Amino acid sequence: MSLLVTGSIGIDSVRTPLGEADDVLGGSAVYFAFAFAASLFTPVRLVGVVGEDFPGAYRDALAGRPIDLVGLETRSGSKTFRWTGSYAGDMNLAETLNVQLNVLAERGPSIPEAFRDSSFVFLANTHPVLQRDLLEQLDGPNLAVCDTMNLWIETQRDELLKTLSVVHGVVLNDAEARLLTEQRDLVSAGRRMLDWGPKFVVIKKGEHGTVLVAADMIFVLPAFPTTNLKDPTGAGDSFAGGMMGYLAGKGLFNMRELKAAIAHGTIAASFAIEDFSIEALRNINRDDVDRRLERFCDMMRFD
Amino acid sequence: MSLLVTGSIGIDSVRTPLGEADDVLGGSAVYFAFAFAASLFTPVRLVGVVGEDFPGAYRDALAGRPIDLVGLETRSGSKTFRWTGSYAGDMNLAETLNVQLNVLAERGPSIPEAFRDSSFVFLANTHPVLQRDLLEQLDGPNLAVCDTMNLWIETQRDELLKTLSVVHGVVLNDAEARLLTEQRDLVSAGRRMLDWGPKFVVIKKGEHGTVLVAADMIFVLPAFPTTNLKDPTGAGDSFAGGMMGYLAGKGLFNMRELKAAIAHGTIAASFAIEDFSIEALRNINRDDVDRRLERFCDMMRFD
Repeated sequence: MSLLVTGSIGIDSVRTPLGEADDVLGGSAVYFAFAFAASLFTPVRLVGVVGEDFPGAYRDALAGRPIDLVGLETRSGSKTFRWTGSYAGDMNLAETLNVQLNVLAERGPSIPEAFRDSSFVFLANTHPVLQRDLLEQLDGPNLAVCDTMNLWIETQRDELLKTLSVVHGVVLNDAEARLLTEQRDLVSAGRRMLDWGPKFVVIKKGEHGTVLVAADMIFVLPAFPTTNLKDPTGAGDSFAGGMMGYLAGKGLFNMRELKAAIAHGTIAASFAIEDFSIEALRNINRDDVDRRLERFCDMMRFD
Repeated sequence: MSLLVTGSIGIDSVRTPLGEADDVLGGSAVYFAFAFAASLFTPVRLVGVVGEDFPGAYRDALAGRPIDLVGLETRSGSKTFRWTGSYAGDMNLAETLNVQLNVLAERGPSIPEAFRDSSFVFLANTHPVLQRDLLEQLDGPNLAVCDTMNLWIETQRDELLKTLSVVHGVVLNDAEARLLTEQRDLVSAGRRMLDWGPKFVVIKKGEHGTVLVAADMIFVLPAFPTTNLKDPTGAGDSFAGGMMGYLAGKGLFNMRELKAAIAHGTIAASFAIEDFSIEALRNINRDDVDRRLERFCDMMRFD
């Protein structure tokens, strides 16, 4: 089934205790698309805007995977989003050293006519009004899921709640869930969000795994225990890409499939963090994901 | 099979955002023993020292469960260990407001003659020299597991490594594992500890679950997602009590049983934190543990 992602496409510079990378391909929609492509060989429809400085090599990298670039707008006179960040200590939290919104501070992208029939949609983190605007350009997808961030929780709470009322699901991290709901434990936080509209809430805990909360249902998974963490950037969007990729591959959505999808997202994220930028994700395929998922299941089995 | 625990028996005063409790029964061996008793109706042999101020009501509470008190020494002229602590924020870390070692600063307990044949032994956190001394008083148990803490890692590292070389397994938390091994990821931390002697390392991550590392084996479990956290004190010792209780109930030790034991420990800990002191643990039995374990398994199942 057709899947569409909207989100940022950027140029990142990242320092971690394990190394650094300058001016590499990044952005939420990019990590999502590469993780999705690794999980399922069906094109993902990418919608986003870059400036005229966006390197041809990065466009080629996107085009080299099953990523439909009809919705990638290159805006004349604008510059691409840039982010510089660094990780220290337990590497759970990035420190933003520099951010240049550039084209992301201008008007948002449009959904191309050919993409309006998309069945599965992921609205990566951006202004909640823009998320709703993008969703309204679509012909009522079967499954619409959004992400968000602290900035919108703190400054656009009412708009964010409106967006939550029109999506089927939300994916966000533990700190964001606590900030938004003022609940200490994540199950209570998830339930509070269910009151606002979505049918399910996926709370990402970084290296500590994931909690899914839906009506009368809790699902918990640890993260895949890696010994090869190099750069956590994009882990959350890669998780979402693997999750949505699995669902789009099945062509249907229900809570049973969502649990398996979350396991796939967990594995996609575990690859993403093993190298800078999308280097690890671009070199794997569905077999790699399936093999690691099998190892992961073995690591949790007991009787 | 006979199980023995050595550790602290104390009087705690605790403040959490959910309430407070003054002068309640606490200590590592106490939480362990109550969790063990809840998991298995076979007496646990308790070895520890209290002062002559130890309340009769607390002795009665211990005697009211299948806890063999022959090894509980009441030392004349000494005072019971006291701890005052508080939790704030995410409640993963206690702030110690006051500690009075009292009898714990004196000579350690002795293992009663009748306890020397114990098959399963848990050496709760104390000075690593005392842990070895206690272990040497036993006739070579089938399974000896120890805990430790930051203080000994920082001040008694060589002695601690000697203790690790004579036990079969170690249970410690994530911060302690990182401090001891200087490894960032917990799998690498566990493997480093295996080099020092133990056959397995169980790393507790509080609300984030557990990682077990053994030769060629990794096992991961999330914590039981509670909405009813009241006081995290004793969660780690309750975990160990449930884990060792399961193994002692089986009467054997292998990696397959250890995984199931860790799941039981996870459930024991999830009860312990639902009330102050041992109030939640004293009111549950093996059926309660089994029922919650079944719910927990459902929460992790996907296909």
